[in-house]
Amino acid sequence: MKTYLDCIPCFFKQALEAAVLSGADNKRQKKILDAVGMAMPELPLSASPPEVARVIHSIVKKITAQKDPYAKIKEKSNKLSLKFYPKMKKKIARSQDSLLTAVELAIAGNIIDYGVKNSINVERELDRIMNEERSAIKKERKSIFNYPGFKVALKKAKNILYLADNSGEVVFDRVLIEEIKKFNKNAGIVYAVKEKPIINDALLKDALIAGIQKYARIISSGADAPGTVLSLCSKYFLNKYRSADMIISKGQGNFEALSDSRRPIFFLFMAKCPVVTRHMKCNLGAIILLANPKCA
Amino acid sequence: MKTYLDCIPCFFKQALEAAVLSGADNKRQKKILDAVGMAMPELPLSASPPEVARVIHSIVKKITAQKDPYAKIKEKSNKLSLKFYPKMKKKIARSQDSLLTAVELAIAGNIIDYGVKNSINVERELDRIMNEERSAIKKERKSIFNYPGFKVALKKAKNILYLADNSGEVVFDRVLIEEIKKFNKNAGIVYAVKEKPIINDALLKDALIAGIQKYARIISSGADAPGTVLSLCSKYFLNKYRSADMIISKGQGNFEALSDSRRPIFFLFMAKCPVVTRHMKCNLGAIILLANPKCA
Repeated sequence: MKTYLDCIPCFFKQALEAAVLSGADNKRQKKILDAVGMAMPELPLSASPPEVARVIHSIVKKITAQKDPYAKIKEKSNKLSLKFYPKMKKKIARSQDSLLTAVELAIAGNIIDYGVKNSINVERELDRIMNEERSAIKKERKSIFNYPGFKVALKKAKNILYLADNSGEVVFDRVLIEEIKKFNKNAGIVYAVKEKPIINDALLKDALIAGIQKYARIISSGADAPGTVLSLCSKYFLNKYRSADMIISKGQGNFEALSDSRRPIFFLFMAKCPVVTRHMKCNLGAIILLANPKCA
Repeated sequence: MKTYLDCIPCFFKQALEAAVLSGADNKRQKKILDAVGMAMPELPLSASPPEVARVIHSIVKKITAQKDPYAKIKEKSNKLSLKFYPKMKKKIARSQDSLLTAVELAIAGNIIDYGVKNSINVERELDRIMNEERSAIKKERKSIFNYPGFKVALKKAKNILYLADNSGEVVFDRVLIEEIKKFNKNAGIVYAVKEKPIINDALLKDALIAGIQKYARIISSGADAPGTVLSLCSKYFLNKYRSADMIISKGQGNFEALSDSRRPIFFLFMAKCPVVTRHMKCNLGAIILLANPKCA
């Protein structure tokens, strides 16, 4: 997905947020926003939002000399999600279709990100989602929530590449991966995190905290864009990407980066901004399970 | 009020909105955002948001050669508000305290602005406000809704300067001005609009459409900032500003521009953005009637 002009105000918002989290004072925050403003004319709109966001965040990092401004937020998200793990398992145990429930939870886990940043009551929100997400999904069009297609692909899959999104959300991913393992005992799963800190995206450390290593091999994308920007990924990752017979892509950032790819991807994400809802013709907050329409 | 760094993303949003309304194509829209980005380092944060916004909008106007991108929106707001005029008069006729109801309506009229831009159902929203605003106001702290102080000042006032905000809202202002005239028969009212088009701010034409001339003398501020930036106003206006014994300032833009003034101002507005709610320590959407705490 290309960068829309509406993304530009949002990049400034992101830069300011990262600057504040980096502990920059008012003067330095302004310096950062000015630097972003000066860089903007050079950034082509043909690039995807995660490609542009990576440049924006590298400006913040350079000026503040803070490599991981979201460290505390990530820690908080992981803790909060781990607290929900037993609840999720109970919900799945009671569920008539445990795989579907796990898919729903894995997408809903995306709210952690939004919640922690916007200081909504994440616990209450998650409780609400855990009780309501099924009915929410029922309202979605089949084209954007293709669970039957997902099941068919999953049954046949031998090598699954699972692209992680945010910290915290990794615990929700674990729940889904556990169910995938039950649904298809023969599938091997590779779980890809980011190489270096970028916003609150999951790193190796976060995946380990969530216990992903018990069910999947954890690798890094080799890149530090907040989405899988293929041109920045390592050869090792690209090899996995090209050979996987099913790719599960979590989060809006990965969708933005990979929506033009022709690989057999299922995009699982919540539509969290007006640009994406317009692109997808869906509502804000829509829960999406999209079979890549460009898959050859 | 100074410009906060959080205002910066919003300036880009405003520039893009104005660019789109001006009919600029994608390439020109990008050119505008780039120009805003390049101008930003030169804009001092000590300036109030309306001062900065004026520069932003002048960039849009220069690049698009469109002098009044909000013309259609203004027309729509006026029509919609005029449609509500009889409803408002009925509500006031039924009210126990017609002045208070008129104050509430005049502040609520601010929603027109937000509504028209954000394509919410303005009619339904206004109906809701007309039925609910009293209870909403009851919840506000007295310090930010000082109706007793407003009445005392109004009773004594001889020369009232009423600073208009947006088109559409002018009809709501008329309703309040009619009640002011009943409350204090001796008060002379001067109603000040902007000199030239800026966003959807009311101009002479809008005041005339609302019928303000039947109750007040209409003048212009002499400026085209989206708020009364005194350094840009005409001598004629400044004379009125300094000699008025009561100033009724409508809208957030006028509050932002005049919050450091020491004149006897009552600020009537809805707190429409997080920067102002933080500054005012109030909730988003709070209905404010503030007696200028800096008045000597």
